[in-house]
Amino acid sequence: MQQYFVDEMPKNNQVQLPADAAHHFVRVMRAVVGSECEVVLPDHRVFKAQLVDRDTAKLALVNQIDRQPELPVNVILACGLPKTKGKPELIVQKGTELGADKIIFFAAKRSISQWRDNKLAKKLAHLQKIAHAAAEQSHRTKIPEIGYDNSLDALLKHEPADFRLVAWEESAKQGEHAQLVQTLRQIKKGQSLLAIFGPEGGISQSEIDYMTSNQVKAAGLGPRILRTETAPLYFLACVSYQLELD
Amino acid sequence: MQQYFVDEMPKNNQVQLPADAAHHFVRVMRAVVGSECEVVLPDHRVFKAQLVDRDTAKLALVNQIDRQPELPVNVILACGLPKTKGKPELIVQKGTELGADKIIFFAAKRSISQWRDNKLAKKLAHLQKIAHAAAEQSHRTKIPEIGYDNSLDALLKHEPADFRLVAWEESAKQGEHAQLVQTLRQIKKGQSLLAIFGPEGGISQSEIDYMTSNQVKAAGLGPRILRTETAPLYFLACVSYQLELD
Repeated sequence: MQQYFVDEMPKNNQVQLPADAAHHFVRVMRAVVGSECEVVLPDHRVFKAQLVDRDTAKLALVNQIDRQPELPVNVILACGLPKTKGKPELIVQKGTELGADKIIFFAAKRSISQWRDNKLAKKLAHLQKIAHAAAEQSHRTKIPEIGYDNSLDALLKHEPADFRLVAWEESAKQGEHAQLVQTLRQIKKGQSLLAIFGPEGGISQSEIDYMTSNQVKAAGLGPRILRTETAPLYFLACVSYQLELD
Repeated sequence: MQQYFVDEMPKNNQVQLPADAAHHFVRVMRAVVGSECEVVLPDHRVFKAQLVDRDTAKLALVNQIDRQPELPVNVILACGLPKTKGKPELIVQKGTELGADKIIFFAAKRSISQWRDNKLAKKLAHLQKIAHAAAEQSHRTKIPEIGYDNSLDALLKHEPADFRLVAWEESAKQGEHAQLVQTLRQIKKGQSLLAIFGPEGGISQSEIDYMTSNQVKAAGLGPRILRTETAPLYFLACVSYQLELD
């Protein structure tokens, strides 16, 4: 069933769809009075709801749905800003599907592009919209927050997190292959995990040194070289496997 | 370092790059005599090699490189043919990066499109090229084979495999959440694992019934609804996590 986020709490057991959602439900899905959808309230509860008025896109709540689609830990993805067009969009769409709580792009040493102040708001709004749509499609009850930090230093200051990892392919070459497993076995429900990924050129040695001296642990993601947009998705799948399936 | 697959075994310790690789190394990468790259021989061994002649793209082998980038089990992905443009390409590119041994598309009940005989060879050649490039980029020593089956029945006949799973979101709703973990704990090095995924509309109940009566087990991939192209990538990451990192 189609899911929409609403931005106001119900009044008299009724909610109103925001403009985009109203257009989609009434125009695209051709909903009529009585048509059903699922709505996620600002407090993240999910309800089955029925359309009561097409013009105002008002819905009556039918019953609460018991659904827990969120990862048991808060994952913050931090991705060195990729230069390739479409990669931030792919990371946001798939990262949302796979349960990220927050997705931050940051200007890494080897990031070719930067997001200047005058374009930043527009870039973030564009990606936030993708996260919104992906959260609806994957039936999540939270929309990840999309952010940007203009340096690694700023990122580390803004995201203390209970556990902090950086994906590093050299790590595997040096024989490390269990850091990710160890971390995911240690982390407890409700704790936070910051996972940092390099841009296309990778993370530089000086960045690794800086991070490891700032309580960020290097973790390998297996013996194959993963593209910059693939590594965060691999990582999120592992979090789900360890904490939701095992 | 740039990696290329060569299609002939060395003679007098020299190999010749195939035309596409020769063009890339000599023209795009502007290699000169003495420039180094890595070559993967038809027997999957990897060597460091040096260019000895720009015109013929002949390379001298320098030394063997000890690298094991292949998953310890043979994973065959079988994906219900997606209707959306670009999705087969994404599955092949990312599935190759993540270690699949074979990627088969099949006409599922809810596949909107089919690949007719007259277009099949062209479609497969196009995807095989993507797999080739992704295998080079991710430094694998095998290029996954891309295939097509015109029915689920044909797929099951062609792919006996030691273990067979179908990703099914209803599985999670019915309380199952450990089939994937159980399978990955049971499978032994060198064994094969067929994993089946639905197209955009999902796998139908009759397909599930047919599969479960044919030794295919239903496995949930967590509580979020994954898009048709995301589920196989989630699955491959879990295989790597359980068998390569743990």
